[in-house]
Amino acid sequence: MTKAEDRRTLQRERLIETAEATIALSGHAALKARDLAASVGVSLGGLYNLVGDLDELMLLVSARTLRRLDAALGAEAGDDPVEQLVGAALAYCRFARDNLSLWRAVFEHHPAAVPDWHVETQLGLFRHLAEPLRRIAPHKSEAQRQLLARTWFSAVHGVVLLGLEAMLVAVPYDALEAQIAEMVRALCAGARQG
Amino acid sequence: MTKAEDRRTLQRERLIETAEATIALSGHAALKARDLAASVGVSLGGLYNLVGDLDELMLLVSARTLRRLDAALGAEAGDDPVEQLVGAALAYCRFARDNLSLWRAVFEHHPAAVPDWHVETQLGLFRHLAEPLRRIAPHKSEAQRQLLARTWFSAVHGVVLLGLEAMLVAVPYDALEAQIAEMVRALCAGARQG
Repeated sequence: MTKAEDRRTLQRERLIETAEATIALSGHAALKARDLAASVGVSLGGLYNLVGDLDELMLLVSARTLRRLDAALGAEAGDDPVEQLVGAALAYCRFARDNLSLWRAVFEHHPAAVPDWHVETQLGLFRHLAEPLRRIAPHKSEAQRQLLARTWFSAVHGVVLLGLEAMLVAVPYDALEAQIAEMVRALCAGARQG
Repeated sequence: MTKAEDRRTLQRERLIETAEATIALSGHAALKARDLAASVGVSLGGLYNLVGDLDELMLLVSARTLRRLDAALGAEAGDDPVEQLVGAALAYCRFARDNLSLWRAVFEHHPAAVPDWHVETQLGLFRHLAEPLRRIAPHKSEAQRQLLARTWFSAVHGVVLLGLEAMLVAVPYDALEAQIAEMVRALCAGARQG
């Protein structure tokens, strides 16, 4: 790597970190190219030499959030597949609570096109569900289980999303976790029979 | 009503309709006070005489969307409570698909404070779930059923939300409806036993 490439890599890294800190503090609507350029110490033209556009920058920040989420989901263990899925769902809930703005940004940002590398980062999360689901519903096809994993993930996502909003109208966080656990158990029971 | 009040009411109505059309076409991030004022034919000061701020305007548009959603959910019928809930879930899914930007705006707009009238519009939607749930889980307390209704609504919301996104990565819409129906049936079976 040349010295110029080195410098560009460092600046790009600093830009992503600055964008991440801005989103964490003020939400993704607060990202402004001019402010970011000033923070990183480049011109506006220099900024677009580091990333193609703000969409790309948002995707790079989202990818970092998803990697941390991936680690949080991977920390869950135990031997019972139902409890593994309950554990993953609760880990997801806690991650969202503790990283609210960054987590929201992952889902509220609608880029014109999602590049393949980002689709893969998203789909990679499903491997935490694949093995427990295989044990719970061995009679289903791989394709059916993949559809089920997407559906359950989305269901837990919805409960967490509105649950964390609903804290404004005073739904206690503890009730949220119990509801999620109960829901995942009901879905597992349904998949065992269906 | 005086003539001036009359005029203000009409202008306010036109402002809400213009904001609604803008969101439907370009998303809620596209709402700009200056453009709206020009469309309605008032000054920027005049705009803030019609609504307190853009947050309030967004809430007024959201309330219209929720009233239309309410009508869509109310259209579902039949006698089996499980199928009533499946029907309501599918009606929700279709409403979101057909009103994507306005529906997203309801959930992606995070005002500093949610006024009581808006909380009531939101909670009013749950009456479509209350009666079927009472028949499915008569052994549960009213409070438990309310929590269940919130959880299930949120779960369906999540599946619809990510499902409509995921159309970008080619998940067929038909699979989405079947998954939602299967999920709601599993949740109902769980609530009957639990």
